[in-house]
Amino acid sequence: MGGDIKEFVGTLRAIVDEAKFNVEPDGIQVRAVDPANVAMDDGVLSAGAFESYDASEGVLGLNLERLEGVLKLAKKNDLVELSFDTNTFKLVIYIDGVEFTMACIDPDSIRSEPEIPDMDLPASFTVDESQIRRGVKAADMVSDHIQIRCDETEQAVFIEAQGDTDDVSLELTEEEYTELTAVDAEALFSLDYVKDISRKFPKNAAISITFGTDFPMMIEYEFADGECEILSMIAPRIRSN
Amino acid sequence: MGGDIKEFVGTLRAIVDEAKFNVEPDGIQVRAVDPANVAMDDGVLSAGAFESYDASEGVLGLNLERLEGVLKLAKKNDLVELSFDTNTFKLVIYIDGVEFTMACIDPDSIRSEPEIPDMDLPASFTVDESQIRRGVKAADMVSDHIQIRCDETEQAVFIEAQGDTDDVSLELTEEEYTELTAVDAEALFSLDYVKDISRKFPKNAAISITFGTDFPMMIEYEFADGECEILSMIAPRIRSN
Amino acid sequence: MGGDIKEFVGTLRAIVDEAKFNVEPDGIQVRAVDPANVAMDDGVLSAGAFESYDASEGVLGLNLERLEGVLKLAKKNDLVELSFDTNTFKLVIYIDGVEFTMACIDPDSIRSEPEIPDMDLPASFTVDESQIRRGVKAADMVSDHIQIRCDETEQAVFIEAQGDTDDVSLELTEEEYTELTAVDAEALFSLDYVKDISRKFPKNAAISITFGTDFPMMIEYEFADGECEILSMIAPRIRSN
Repeated sequence: MGGDIKEFVGTLRAIVDEAKFNVEPDGIQVRAVDPANVAMDDGVLSAGAFESYDASEGVLGLNLERLEGVLKLAKKNDLVELSFDTNTFKLVIYIDGVEFTMACIDPDSIRSEPEIPDMDLPASFTVDESQIRRGVKAADMVSDHIQIRCDETEQAVFIEAQGDTDDVSLELTEEEYTELTAVDAEALFSLDYVKDISRKFPKNAAISITFGTDFPMMIEYEFADGECEILSMIAPRIRSN
Repeated sequence: MGGDIKEFVGTLRAIVDEAKFNVEPDGIQVRAVDPANVAMDDGVLSAGAFESYDASEGVLGLNLERLEGVLKLAKKNDLVELSFDTNTFKLVIYIDGVEFTMACIDPDSIRSEPEIPDMDLPASFTVDESQIRRGVKAADMVSDHIQIRCDETEQAVFIEAQGDTDDVSLELTEEEYTELTAVDAEALFSLDYVKDISRKFPKNAAISITFGTDFPMMIEYEFADGECEILSMIAPRIRSN
Repeated sequence: MGGDIKEFVGTLRAIVDEAKFNVEPDGIQVRAVDPANVAMDDGVLSAGAFESYDASEGVLGLNLERLEGVLKLAKKNDLVELSFDTNTFKLVIYIDGVEFTMACIDPDSIRSEPEIPDMDLPASFTVDESQIRRGVKAADMVSDHIQIRCDETEQAVFIEAQGDTDDVSLELTEEEYTELTAVDAEALFSLDYVKDISRKFPKNAAISITFGTDFPMMIEYEFADGECEILSMIAPRIRSN
């Protein structure tokens, strides 16, 4: 379990430093938006991801940086025990003989959770995380922006970037998709956000991306045998051409 | 032999930059105290740790940083040949075809060796180095200090740290000791010193720690099949509670 | 092929940031001199190093830093496809699905290629690259300069360095040469250049060095099964003793 909760917290850390954890009987739900309102994460870690889980409803405000630091002490298969002391308002984390007592943050002091807008995003595809990361790495050599483009005629998706002097283009070929709904669409994103988020993709995860021309992009994947689901949303940048 | 002398010099380097090496017919003895008088090392590298050893009595002042740099050229099983040229007052180090000639420092310019105080330290325990390093890593997440506490009733040792908002505690459970003399005692130390010293522990070494309430802590271990013995002492910090 | 062209570009990058690539029907030839006129590279990558090669004569001015960055995306056995678009004057690099379009530099804006001076260099030897790198590493501990010295009587080559207080000397013993023409000679070089160039030696390459007293040193080696040949020249420094 150490690995899963580390992954969950690491994902959120890509965009925020502190977050509200909504603890519910069937799992933990977190929604967080970055300070610039460009990226949002909505993650669920189900009770099934835990060896044992027993919780009543509540909201914890947590410093993710400190929590991530503590979880680093856990090896992949170490059990991580979390409990909340309702008297002291402290989270107690127990990892293989080490007991951490961590102060919580007042949830009201954390930015309130955004609504996920209702959007009609026509294009979508699912590829292995390595393809996205490859496209991001290539884009990073020439530009601060990255474009996702879907071509209905070619039935293909392109990850592209245009620099001042150099360009780069990665065509996702048919054998790389596990799913493709090809509709003409293109959208530009700030590379920094896409980099931060894609860096946290679990190894070999199937990444589903849904997007539309100049609309936000939705990035979905799961891990921990499906017990953890992540939805990341990134707002588009205005294309200048 | 390359590995052993590297380890010996590396250990000393944790607290001082230069040291007096007392060369004697049966081995080399070094005692050094850090500039702030908080930590002391007393190390012996016996003649038996060398393939061959032939030395009359003498004192060499050595720049440990430079010596450590030179020894990095030796792989673990390379023979390292040391000889002292009494005409030029230079140390000659020969490692697999490479000959270094290193100027010595006037021993009188190096801080004089401290006495080891005579103390009655009631509590002691011996654990694998990984346990200490684990406790140090945990303490490092919350504080600049680390407390060692022994509980006679529980027959247990705790490595603890208290930060402004977060605490951490590692209980060394029975199966982890190879030796334990449990007497109520606790002492606080500056984490930086404990970190620097524990970083140099040889892999899998048995570390013996002896301490008493608000007294210095003595850390002892050996390597090179027992031919090298290290005693490190760290002065306590005043506990504020 | 990815590995070979990466190696070729990496070698040149040790001394220059941009270079003129002379494309000819039988391969690519590059000669470049560093901004301080201390080091020169002359490299040939023959058509035989390519899976397929089809080129008419031409000169491309290339930013090596950017080219090296792009080539990093290629794994050792990835095919790298290079083509030059004569309409846009852009180099197109295709690596496993990713297409880079890179602007070329006007060749006339790049420093003109130097002549290789005609010199009579009496001493020469060939050793494995690891010997040179070992000598460079040792020299780096004591000085900013490195001396190559050949002793006719001893039939030996020494890599030496003299620091303010410490000296170092590596004798290349007979079993380490694959070739030796021993004539009394010694020359001093700036260590930075020797370091930058030796860092790029291909693993296990046989390095041939030719030199004479206070003359430039010629360093020759090949890789890609002999399809790539490199000659590096480094100007000497004046010896002060």
